[in-house]
Amino acid sequence: MELFAVPDLPEIRAGDDLASLVAERIDLREDDVLCVASTVVSKAEGRTFDLDDFPAGDRARGIAARLADVTGEQKDPRFAQAVLEESVELLLEAPFILAVTEFGHITVNAGIDRSNVPDGDLLLLPENPSASAAGLSEALGVPVVVTDTSGRPFRYGQRGVAVGWAGIPASRDWRGETDRDGRELAATVQSVVDELAGAANLVAGEGDGGTPAVVVRGFEFGDHDGSENLFREEADDLVRAALREWAFDG
Amino acid sequence: MELFAVPDLPEIRAGDDLASLVAERIDLREDDVLCVASTVVSKAEGRTFDLDDFPAGDRARGIAARLADVTGEQKDPRFAQAVLEESVELLLEAPFILAVTEFGHITVNAGIDRSNVPDGDLLLLPENPSASAAGLSEALGVPVVVTDTSGRPFRYGQRGVAVGWAGIPASRDWRGETDRDGRELAATVQSVVDELAGAANLVAGEGDGGTPAVVVRGFEFGDHDGSENLFREEADDLVRAALREWAFDG
Repeated sequence: MELFAVPDLPEIRAGDDLASLVAERIDLREDDVLCVASTVVSKAEGRTFDLDDFPAGDRARGIAARLADVTGEQKDPRFAQAVLEESVELLLEAPFILAVTEFGHITVNAGIDRSNVPDGDLLLLPENPSASAAGLSEALGVPVVVTDTSGRPFRYGQRGVAVGWAGIPASRDWRGETDRDGRELAATVQSVVDELAGAANLVAGEGDGGTPAVVVRGFEFGDHDGSENLFREEADDLVRAALREWAFDG
Repeated sequence: MELFAVPDLPEIRAGDDLASLVAERIDLREDDVLCVASTVVSKAEGRTFDLDDFPAGDRARGIAARLADVTGEQKDPRFAQAVLEESVELLLEAPFILAVTEFGHITVNAGIDRSNVPDGDLLLLPENPSASAAGLSEALGVPVVVTDTSGRPFRYGQRGVAVGWAGIPASRDWRGETDRDGRELAATVQSVVDELAGAANLVAGEGDGGTPAVVVRGFEFGDHDGSENLFREEADDLVRAALREWAFDG
Protein backbone atom coordinates (compact mmCIF):
# COMPACT_ATOMS: atom_id res chain seq x y z
CA MET A 1 0.00 0.00 0.00
CA GLU A 2 1.34 3.38 -0.96
CA LEU A 3 0.33 6.95 -0.12
CA PHE A 4 1.20 10.12 -1.94
CA ALA A 5 -0.08 13.66 -2.11
CA VAL A 6 -1.84 15.05 -5.17
CA PRO A 7 0.78 17.58 -6.28
CA ASP A 8 0.36 21.32 -6.77
CA LEU A 9 -3.30 21.80 -6.01
CA PRO A 10 -4.05 25.53 -6.14
CA GLU A 11 -5.83 27.40 -3.35
CA ILE A 12 -9.44 26.27 -3.72
CA ARG A 13 -12.24 28.86 -4.06
CA ALA A 14 -16.02 28.65 -4.08
CA GLY A 15 -17.29 27.03 -7.23
CA ASP A 16 -14.04 25.27 -8.12
CA ASP A 17 -14.44 21.83 -9.64
CA LEU A 18 -12.36 19.85 -7.20
CA ALA A 19 -12.72 16.56 -9.10
CA SER A 20 -11.30 18.09 -12.28
CA LEU A 21 -8.47 19.78 -10.40
CA VAL A 22 -7.49 16.38 -9.00
CA ALA A 23 -7.99 14.48 -12.26
CA GLU A 24 -5.77 16.97 -14.13
CA ARG A 25 -2.92 16.27 -11.72
CA ILE A 26 -2.98 12.54 -11.27
CA ASP A 27 -3.97 9.36 -13.07
CA LEU A 28 -6.14 7.58 -10.59
CA ARG A 29 -6.23 3.79 -10.68
CA GLU A 30 -8.87 1.25 -9.76
CA ASP A 31 -7.11 0.37 -6.50
CA ASP A 32 -6.92 3.99 -5.30
CA VAL A 33 -8.83 5.69 -2.53
CA LEU A 34 -8.77 9.49 -2.61
CA CYS A 35 -8.64 11.20 0.78
CA VAL A 36 -9.59 14.88 0.62
CA ALA A 37 -9.43 17.35 3.47
CA SER A 38 -12.84 18.73 4.37
CA THR A 39 -11.33 22.22 4.23
CA VAL A 40 -10.97 22.15 0.45
CA VAL A 41 -14.34 20.47 -0.05
CA SER A 42 -15.89 23.22 2.08
CA LYS A 43 -14.10 25.97 0.16
CA ALA A 44 -15.25 24.56 -3.19
CA GLU A 45 -18.80 24.37 -1.81
CA GLY A 46 -18.77 27.96 -0.64
CA ARG A 47 -18.88 27.18 3.07
CA THR A 48 -16.77 30.24 3.92
CA PHE A 49 -18.55 32.81 6.10
CA ASP A 50 -17.93 35.97 8.05
CA LEU A 51 -18.63 36.30 11.73
CA ASP A 52 -21.18 38.96 10.81
CA ASP A 53 -23.22 36.27 9.10
CA PHE A 54 -24.03 34.91 12.56
CA PRO A 55 -25.64 37.58 14.74
CA ALA A 56 -25.50 36.16 18.23
CA GLY A 57 -28.68 35.19 20.02
CA ASP A 58 -29.13 34.87 23.78
CA ARG A 59 -27.85 31.33 24.01
CA ALA A 60 -24.71 32.11 22.00
CA ARG A 61 -23.99 35.13 24.22
CA GLY A 62 -24.44 32.93 27.27
CA ILE A 63 -22.04 30.32 25.92
CA ALA A 64 -19.43 32.95 25.02
CA ALA A 65 -19.66 34.41 28.51
CA ARG A 66 -19.33 30.99 30.11
CA LEU A 67 -16.35 30.15 27.89
CA ALA A 68 -14.68 33.43 28.84
CA ASP A 69 -15.30 32.71 32.52
CA VAL A 70 -13.81 29.25 32.35
CA THR A 71 -10.89 29.88 30.01
CA GLY A 72 -10.08 33.50 30.83
CA GLU A 73 -10.07 34.39 27.15
CA GLN A 74 -12.59 36.60 25.40
CA LYS A 75 -14.76 34.60 23.00
CA ASP A 76 -16.80 36.00 20.12
CA PRO A 77 -20.50 35.24 20.66
CA ARG A 78 -20.97 35.19 16.86
CA PHE A 79 -18.62 32.22 16.73
CA ALA A 80 -20.74 30.44 19.34
CA GLN A 81 -23.78 31.28 17.22
CA ALA A 82 -22.19 29.66 14.16
CA VAL A 83 -21.44 26.52 16.19
CA LEU A 84 -25.03 26.42 17.43
CA GLU A 85 -26.41 26.73 13.91
CA GLU A 86 -24.19 23.88 12.71
CA SER A 87 -25.18 21.57 15.56
CA VAL A 88 -28.10 19.49 16.70
CA GLU A 89 -26.80 19.32 20.26
CA LEU A 90 -23.96 20.57 22.42
CA LEU A 91 -22.40 18.02 24.77
CA LEU A 92 -20.17 20.59 26.44
CA GLU A 93 -20.19 24.39 26.45
CA ALA A 94 -16.95 24.94 28.38
CA PRO A 95 -13.97 24.80 28.54
CA PHE A 96 -14.63 24.10 24.87
CA ILE A 97 -17.75 23.56 22.82
CA LEU A 98 -18.24 19.90 21.99
CA ALA A 99 -20.97 19.64 19.38
CA VAL A 100 -22.93 17.01 17.49
CA THR A 101 -23.17 18.12 13.87
CA GLU A 102 -26.28 17.69 11.72
CA PHE A 103 -24.69 14.66 10.07
CA GLY A 104 -23.75 13.00 13.38
CA HIS A 105 -20.07 13.83 13.83
CA ILE A 106 -19.06 14.84 17.38
CA THR A 107 -16.25 17.35 17.46
CA VAL A 108 -15.02 20.58 19.02
CA ASN A 109 -16.71 23.72 17.65
CA ALA A 110 -18.73 21.59 15.19
CA GLY A 111 -15.57 21.45 13.12
CA ILE A 112 -15.64 25.16 12.27
CA ASP A 113 -12.19 26.34 11.26
CA ARG A 114 -10.74 29.79 11.87
CA SER A 115 -7.37 29.27 10.21
CA ASN A 116 -6.77 28.58 6.54
CA VAL A 117 -9.75 30.74 5.52
CA PRO A 118 -8.55 33.27 2.95
CA ASP A 119 -11.95 34.69 1.96
CA GLY A 120 -13.64 35.04 5.30
CA ASP A 121 -13.52 34.50 9.03
CA LEU A 122 -14.93 31.00 9.26
CA LEU A 123 -14.89 27.79 7.31
CA LEU A 124 -17.77 25.44 8.09
CA LEU A 125 -17.66 21.70 7.44
CA PRO A 126 -19.46 20.55 4.29
CA GLU A 127 -23.20 20.34 4.95
CA ASN A 128 -23.26 16.67 4.09
CA PRO A 129 -19.72 15.34 3.70
CA SER A 130 -20.81 11.89 2.50
CA ALA A 131 -22.84 13.53 -0.27
CA SER A 132 -19.74 15.57 -1.16
CA ALA A 133 -17.71 12.35 -1.21
CA ALA A 134 -20.31 10.69 -3.43
CA GLY A 135 -20.09 13.51 -5.96
CA LEU A 136 -16.31 13.33 -6.07
CA SER A 137 -16.35 9.53 -6.19
CA GLU A 138 -18.74 9.51 -9.12
CA ALA A 139 -16.68 12.04 -11.03
CA LEU A 140 -13.35 10.34 -10.33
CA GLY A 141 -14.33 6.67 -10.40
CA VAL A 142 -12.62 5.80 -7.11
CA PRO A 143 -13.73 5.67 -3.46
CA VAL A 144 -13.42 9.00 -1.66
CA VAL A 145 -12.97 9.81 2.02
CA VAL A 146 -13.55 13.38 3.22
CA THR A 147 -11.27 13.93 6.19
CA ASP A 148 -10.91 16.22 9.16
CA THR A 149 -8.62 16.24 12.15
CA SER A 150 -10.11 15.85 15.57
CA GLY A 151 -9.10 15.46 19.20
CA ARG A 152 -10.48 12.65 21.32
CA PRO A 153 -11.07 11.55 24.88
CA PHE A 154 -8.39 9.62 26.79
CA ARG A 155 -5.56 10.46 24.39
CA TYR A 156 -3.67 13.67 23.64
CA GLY A 157 -3.37 14.97 20.14
CA GLN A 158 -5.47 15.04 17.06
CA ARG A 159 -5.62 12.45 14.33
CA GLY A 160 -7.26 12.30 10.94
CA VAL A 161 -10.84 11.06 10.90
CA ALA A 162 -13.41 10.50 8.18
CA VAL A 163 -16.36 12.89 8.16
CA GLY A 164 -17.76 11.60 4.85
CA TRP A 165 -17.11 8.68 2.53
CA ALA A 166 -18.42 7.07 -0.64
CA GLY A 167 -17.52 4.04 -2.73
CA ILE A 168 -16.19 2.19 0.32
CA PRO A 169 -17.96 1.01 3.49
CA ALA A 170 -17.17 2.90 6.68
CA SER A 171 -15.97 -0.26 8.32
CA ARG A 172 -14.94 -3.82 7.70
CA ASP A 173 -16.56 -6.57 9.69
CA TRP A 174 -14.35 -9.41 10.94
CA ARG A 175 -16.97 -10.93 13.22
CA GLY A 176 -17.50 -14.63 12.74
CA GLU A 177 -14.04 -15.02 11.23
CA THR A 178 -11.43 -17.09 13.01
CA ASP A 179 -7.94 -16.68 14.37
CA ARG A 180 -5.00 -18.92 13.43
CA ASP A 181 -6.26 -21.59 15.83
CA GLY A 182 -9.79 -21.54 14.54
CA ARG A 183 -11.24 -19.62 17.50
CA GLU A 184 -13.76 -16.98 16.64
CA LEU A 185 -12.37 -13.45 16.81
CA ALA A 186 -13.71 -11.54 19.78
CA ALA A 187 -13.45 -8.35 17.83
CA THR A 188 -14.07 -6.62 15.58
CA VAL A 189 -15.48 -4.01 13.36
CA GLN A 190 -12.59 -2.10 11.85
CA SER A 191 -13.22 1.52 11.00
CA VAL A 192 -11.30 1.57 7.73
CA VAL A 193 -12.35 5.06 6.65
CA ASP A 194 -10.96 6.52 9.86
CA GLU A 195 -7.74 4.57 9.41
CA LEU A 196 -7.48 5.80 5.82
CA ALA A 197 -8.04 9.37 6.98
CA GLY A 198 -5.37 9.02 9.66
CA ALA A 199 -2.90 7.48 7.22
CA ALA A 200 -3.52 10.28 4.74
CA ASN A 201 -2.92 12.83 7.48
CA LEU A 202 0.61 11.44 7.93
CA VAL A 203 1.35 12.49 4.38
CA ALA A 204 -0.79 15.62 4.18
CA GLY A 205 0.79 17.81 6.80
CA GLU A 206 -0.84 21.07 7.83
CA GLY A 207 -0.41 24.72 7.26
CA ASP A 208 1.51 26.33 4.44
CA GLY A 209 3.16 23.10 3.37
CA GLY A 210 -0.10 21.19 3.60
CA THR A 211 -1.41 19.04 0.79
CA PRO A 212 -5.16 18.58 1.08
CA ALA A 213 -5.57 15.55 -1.21
CA VAL A 214 -3.81 12.24 -0.74
CA VAL A 215 -4.07 9.05 -2.78
CA VAL A 216 -3.99 5.72 -0.96
CA ARG A 217 -2.99 3.14 -3.57
CA GLY A 218 -3.40 -0.59 -3.10
CA PHE A 219 -5.61 -0.79 -0.03
CA GLU A 220 -7.54 -4.06 -0.18
CA PHE A 221 -10.90 -4.15 1.51
CA GLY A 222 -11.08 -7.87 0.78
CA ASP A 223 -14.02 -10.22 0.96
CA HIS A 224 -15.67 -8.98 4.13
CA ASP A 225 -18.98 -7.54 5.15
CA GLY A 226 -19.04 -3.79 5.46
CA SER A 227 -21.05 -1.31 7.45
CA GLU A 228 -22.04 2.23 6.65
CA ASN A 229 -22.25 3.26 10.30
CA LEU A 230 -19.52 5.47 11.67
CA PHE A 231 -21.19 7.93 14.03
CA ARG A 232 -22.59 6.22 17.11
CA GLU A 233 -26.29 6.34 17.76
CA GLU A 234 -27.08 7.85 21.13
CA ALA A 235 -28.26 4.52 22.51
CA ASP A 236 -24.84 2.99 21.79
CA ASP A 237 -22.81 5.77 23.32
CA LEU A 238 -22.30 5.63 27.06
CA VAL A 239 -19.78 8.42 26.97
CA ARG A 240 -22.22 10.75 25.29
CA ALA A 241 -24.82 9.92 27.92
CA ALA A 242 -22.34 10.43 30.74
CA LEU A 243 -21.05 13.67 29.33
CA ARG A 244 -24.47 15.17 28.82
CA GLU A 245 -25.52 14.38 32.34
CA TRP A 246 -22.29 15.60 33.82
CA ALA A 247 -22.16 18.85 31.86
CA PHE A 248 -25.75 19.97 32.15
CA ASP A 249 -27.31 18.24 35.13
CA GLY A 250 -24.26 17.99 37.37
CA MET B 1 5.06 6.65 1.90
CA GLU B 2 4.68 2.92 1.56
CA LEU B 3 3.39 0.18 3.88
CA PHE B 4 3.99 -3.52 3.67
CA ALA B 5 3.74 -6.50 5.96
CA VAL B 6 6.78 -8.36 7.25
CA PRO B 7 6.28 -11.67 5.42
CA ASP B 8 5.97 -15.14 6.92
CA LEU B 9 6.42 -14.45 10.60
CA PRO B 10 5.90 -17.72 12.48
CA GLU B 11 3.55 -18.07 15.43
CA ILE B 12 5.38 -16.29 18.24
CA ARG B 13 6.06 -18.09 21.54
CA ALA B 14 7.42 -17.01 24.90
CA GLY B 15 11.13 -16.27 24.71
CA ASP B 16 11.22 -15.75 20.95
CA ASP B 17 13.58 -13.02 19.77
CA LEU B 18 11.11 -10.89 17.86
CA ALA B 19 13.73 -8.45 16.59
CA SER B 20 15.76 -11.25 15.01
CA LEU B 21 12.69 -12.83 13.48
CA VAL B 22 11.88 -9.48 11.83
CA ALA B 23 15.47 -8.73 10.81
CA GLU B 24 15.80 -12.16 9.14
CA ARG B 25 12.82 -11.41 6.95
CA ILE B 26 13.33 -7.84 5.88
CA ASP B 27 16.07 -5.30 5.27
CA LEU B 28 14.99 -2.32 7.28
CA ARG B 29 16.02 1.13 6.07
CA GLU B 30 16.70 4.39 7.86
CA ASP B 31 13.34 5.84 6.81
CA ASP B 32 11.31 2.90 8.15
CA VAL B 33 9.04 2.72 11.16
CA LEU B 34 8.18 -0.78 12.34
CA CYS B 35 4.64 -1.24 13.67
CA VAL B 36 4.25 -4.44 15.70
CA ALA B 37 1.01 -5.78 17.12
CA SER B 38 1.04 -5.90 20.90
CA THR B 39 -0.20 -9.51 20.65
CA VAL B 40 3.13 -10.79 19.33
CA VAL B 41 5.14 -8.61 21.71
CA SER B 42 3.10 -10.05 24.57
CA LYS B 43 3.55 -13.61 23.36
CA ALA B 44 7.31 -13.16 23.08
CA GLU B 45 7.35 -11.68 26.58
CA GLY B 46 5.42 -14.59 28.05
CA ARG B 47 2.26 -12.62 28.84
CA THR B 48 0.04 -15.64 28.18
CA PHE B 49 -1.93 -16.83 31.21
CA ASP B 50 -4.68 -19.20 32.19
CA LEU B 51 -7.85 -18.11 33.89
CA ASP B 52 -6.77 -20.25 36.85
CA ASP B 53 -3.87 -17.86 37.35
CA PHE B 54 -6.42 -15.28 38.53
CA PRO B 55 -8.47 -16.62 41.45
CA ALA B 56 -11.35 -14.19 41.74
CA GLY B 57 -11.65 -11.96 44.78
CA ASP B 58 -14.82 -10.31 46.03
CA ARG B 59 -14.62 -7.30 43.76
CA ALA B 60 -14.07 -9.45 40.64
CA ARG B 61 -17.05 -11.63 41.57
CA GLY B 62 -19.14 -8.52 42.04
CA ILE B 63 -18.12 -7.14 38.65
CA ALA B 64 -18.84 -10.46 36.92
CA ALA B 65 -22.28 -10.59 38.51
CA ARG B 66 -23.02 -7.01 37.48
CA LEU B 67 -21.84 -7.69 33.93
CA ALA B 68 -24.05 -10.77 33.75
CA ASP B 69 -27.03 -8.75 35.04
CA VAL B 70 -26.54 -6.00 32.49
CA THR B 71 -25.57 -8.06 29.44
CA GLY B 72 -27.47 -11.29 30.12
CA GLU B 73 -24.34 -13.32 29.46
CA GLN B 74 -22.40 -15.30 32.02
CA LYS B 75 -18.99 -13.76 32.71
CA ASP B 76 -16.02 -15.50 34.28
CA PRO B 77 -15.04 -13.74 37.52
CA ARG B 78 -11.45 -14.84 36.95
CA PHE B 79 -11.42 -12.73 33.80
CA ALA B 80 -12.63 -9.73 35.80
CA GLN B 81 -9.85 -10.47 38.30
CA ALA B 82 -7.25 -10.40 35.52
CA VAL B 83 -8.58 -7.04 34.32
CA LEU B 84 -8.46 -5.67 37.88
CA GLU B 85 -4.86 -6.81 38.32
CA GLU B 86 -3.85 -5.13 35.05
CA SER B 87 -5.53 -1.83 35.92
CA VAL B 88 -5.06 1.14 38.17
CA GLU B 89 -8.71 2.18 37.86
CA LEU B 90 -11.95 1.07 36.25
CA LEU B 91 -14.00 3.81 34.59
CA LEU B 92 -16.89 1.47 33.85
CA GLU B 93 -17.82 -1.99 35.13
CA ALA B 94 -20.81 -2.62 32.88
CA PRO B 95 -21.97 -3.16 30.16
CA PHE B 96 -18.24 -3.58 29.59
CA ILE B 97 -15.17 -3.02 31.71
CA LEU B 98 -13.35 0.16 30.73
CA ALA B 99 -10.00 0.19 32.43
CA VAL B 100 -6.97 2.43 32.86
CA THR B 101 -3.88 0.26 32.51
CA GLU B 102 -0.75 0.69 34.64
CA PHE B 103 0.92 2.52 31.77
CA GLY B 104 -2.01 4.91 31.22
CA HIS B 105 -3.89 3.43 28.26
CA ILE B 106 -7.69 3.45 28.60
CA THR B 107 -9.33 0.50 26.90
CA VAL B 108 -11.95 -2.21 27.27
CA ASN B 109 -10.88 -5.14 29.49
CA ALA B 110 -7.44 -3.52 29.97
CA GLY B 111 -6.62 -4.85 26.52
CA ILE B 112 -6.71 -8.49 27.61
CA ASP B 113 -7.26 -10.73 24.61
CA ARG B 114 -9.13 -14.02 24.60
CA SER B 115 -8.67 -14.92 20.94
CA ASN B 116 -5.38 -15.64 19.21
CA VAL B 117 -3.95 -17.24 22.38
CA PRO B 118 -2.63 -20.68 21.48
CA ASP B 119 -0.90 -21.51 24.76
CA GLY B 120 -3.44 -20.29 27.28
CA ASP B 121 -6.73 -18.59 27.94
CA LEU B 122 -5.61 -14.98 28.12
CA LEU B 123 -3.09 -12.72 26.53
CA LEU B 124 -2.25 -9.61 28.56
CA LEU B 125 -0.80 -6.44 27.03
CA PRO B 126 2.96 -6.01 27.50
CA GLU B 127 3.70 -4.72 30.99
CA ASN B 128 5.39 -1.62 29.59
CA PRO B 129 4.82 -1.39 25.83
CA SER B 130 7.12 1.61 25.38
CA ALA B 131 9.94 -0.32 27.05
CA SER B 132 9.19 -3.20 24.68
CA ALA B 133 9.29 -0.77 21.76
CA ALA B 134 12.61 0.62 23.01
CA GLY B 135 14.15 -2.85 23.09
CA LEU B 136 13.00 -3.61 19.56
CA SER B 137 14.04 -0.18 18.32
CA GLU B 138 17.52 -0.55 19.74
CA ALA B 139 17.95 -4.01 18.20
CA LEU B 140 16.57 -3.02 14.80
CA GLY B 141 17.84 0.55 14.48
CA VAL B 142 14.47 2.03 13.46
CA PRO B 143 11.57 3.62 15.36
CA VAL B 144 9.04 1.10 16.65
CA VAL B 145 5.35 1.47 17.46
CA VAL B 146 3.60 -1.25 19.47
CA THR B 147 -0.02 -1.30 18.35
CA ASP B 148 -3.37 -2.50 19.55
CA THR B 149 -6.88 -2.07 18.24
CA SER B 150 -9.39 -0.22 20.35
CA GLY B 151 -12.93 1.11 20.23
CA ARG B 152 -13.70 4.69 21.12
CA PRO B 153 -16.47 7.04 22.20
CA PHE B 154 -18.65 8.77 19.60
CA ARG B 155 -17.66 6.53 16.69
CA TYR B 156 -18.41 2.91 15.85
CA GLY B 157 -15.65 0.48 15.09
CA GLN B 158 -12.15 -0.08 16.24
CA ARG B 159 -9.00 1.40 14.82
CA GLY B 160 -5.33 0.79 15.39
CA VAL B 161 -3.75 2.77 18.21
CA ALA B 162 -0.27 2.99 19.66
CA VAL B 163 0.22 1.53 23.13
CA GLY B 164 3.99 1.94 23.12
CA TRP B 165 6.58 3.67 20.96
CA ALA B 166 10.30 4.40 20.80
CA GLY B 167 12.60 6.25 18.45
CA ILE B 168 9.83 8.63 17.41
CA PRO B 169 7.85 11.20 19.43
CA ALA B 170 4.22 10.33 20.17
CA SER B 171 3.07 13.48 18.44
CA ARG B 172 4.14 16.29 16.17
CA ASP B 173 3.56 19.84 17.24
CA TRP B 174 2.35 22.31 14.62
CA ARG B 175 1.56 25.09 17.09
CA GLY B 176 3.07 28.42 16.21
CA GLU B 177 3.34 27.46 12.55
CA THR B 178 1.32 29.31 9.97
CA ASP B 179 -1.22 28.55 7.28
CA ARG B 180 -0.85 29.57 3.64
CA ASP B 181 -1.93 33.09 4.52
CA GLY B 182 0.45 33.47 7.39
CA ARG B 183 -2.19 33.08 10.11
CA GLU B 184 -1.17 30.97 13.04
CA LEU B 185 -2.66 27.47 12.99
CA ALA B 186 -5.34 27.06 15.62
CA ALA B 187 -4.46 23.43 15.93
CA THR B 188 -2.65 21.29 16.51
CA VAL B 189 -0.77 18.46 18.05
CA GLN B 190 -0.85 15.52 15.68
CA SER B 191 -0.73 12.09 17.22
CA VAL B 192 1.57 10.51 14.66
CA VAL B 193 2.08 7.21 16.50
CA ASP B 194 -1.67 6.61 16.54
CA GLU B 195 -1.91 7.47 12.86
CA LEU B 196 0.98 5.11 12.10
CA ALA B 197 -0.75 2.35 14.10
CA GLY B 198 -4.02 2.92 12.24
CA ALA B 199 -2.28 2.94 8.87
CA ALA B 200 -0.49 -0.31 9.72
CA ASN B 201 -3.79 -1.88 10.72
CA LEU B 202 -5.09 -1.29 7.18
CA VAL B 203 -2.37 -3.61 5.94
CA ALA B 204 -2.19 -6.02 8.87
CA GLY B 205 -5.64 -7.51 8.85
CA GLU B 206 -6.81 -9.74 11.68
CA GLY B 207 -7.29 -13.40 12.37
CA ASP B 208 -5.81 -16.26 10.42
CA GLY B 209 -4.62 -14.06 7.58
CA GLY B 210 -3.25 -11.46 9.95
CA THR B 211 0.28 -10.13 9.68
CA PRO B 212 1.40 -8.71 13.00
CA ALA B 213 4.35 -6.61 11.81
CA VAL B 214 4.12 -3.85 9.23
CA VAL B 215 6.81 -1.56 7.90
CA VAL B 216 5.94 2.07 7.18
CA ARG B 217 8.59 3.30 4.76
CA GLY B 218 9.20 6.96 3.98
CA PHE B 219 7.22 8.70 6.73
CA GLU B 220 8.80 12.10 7.34
CA PHE B 221 8.44 13.55 10.82
CA GLY B 222 10.07 16.74 9.56
CA ASP B 223 11.49 19.65 11.48
CA HIS B 224 8.88 19.98 14.21
CA ASP B 225 8.75 19.78 17.95
CA GLY B 226 7.58 16.49 19.32
CA SER B 227 5.87 15.37 22.48
CA GLU B 228 6.10 12.10 24.35
CA ASN B 229 2.61 12.43 25.84
CA LEU B 230 -0.10 10.22 24.44
CA PHE B 231 -2.26 9.15 27.38
CA ARG B 232 -4.16 12.07 28.87
CA GLU B 233 -3.51 13.06 32.43
CA GLU B 234 -6.66 12.99 34.52
CA ALA B 235 -6.70 16.78 34.85
CA ASP B 236 -6.85 17.11 31.06
CA ASP B 237 -9.60 14.58 30.52
CA LEU B 238 -13.15 15.84 30.96
CA VAL B 239 -14.61 12.64 29.57
CA ARG B 240 -12.80 10.57 32.14
CA ALA B 241 -14.09 12.82 34.90
CA ALA B 242 -17.63 12.69 33.54
CA LEU B 243 -17.56 8.95 33.09
CA ARG B 244 -16.27 8.24 36.55
CA GLU B 245 -18.92 10.40 38.15
CA TRP B 246 -21.69 8.98 36.01
CA ALA B 247 -20.73 5.34 36.48
CA PHE B 248 -19.97 5.28 40.18
CA ASP B 249 -21.67 8.25 41.82
CA GLY B 250 -24.71 8.55 39.54
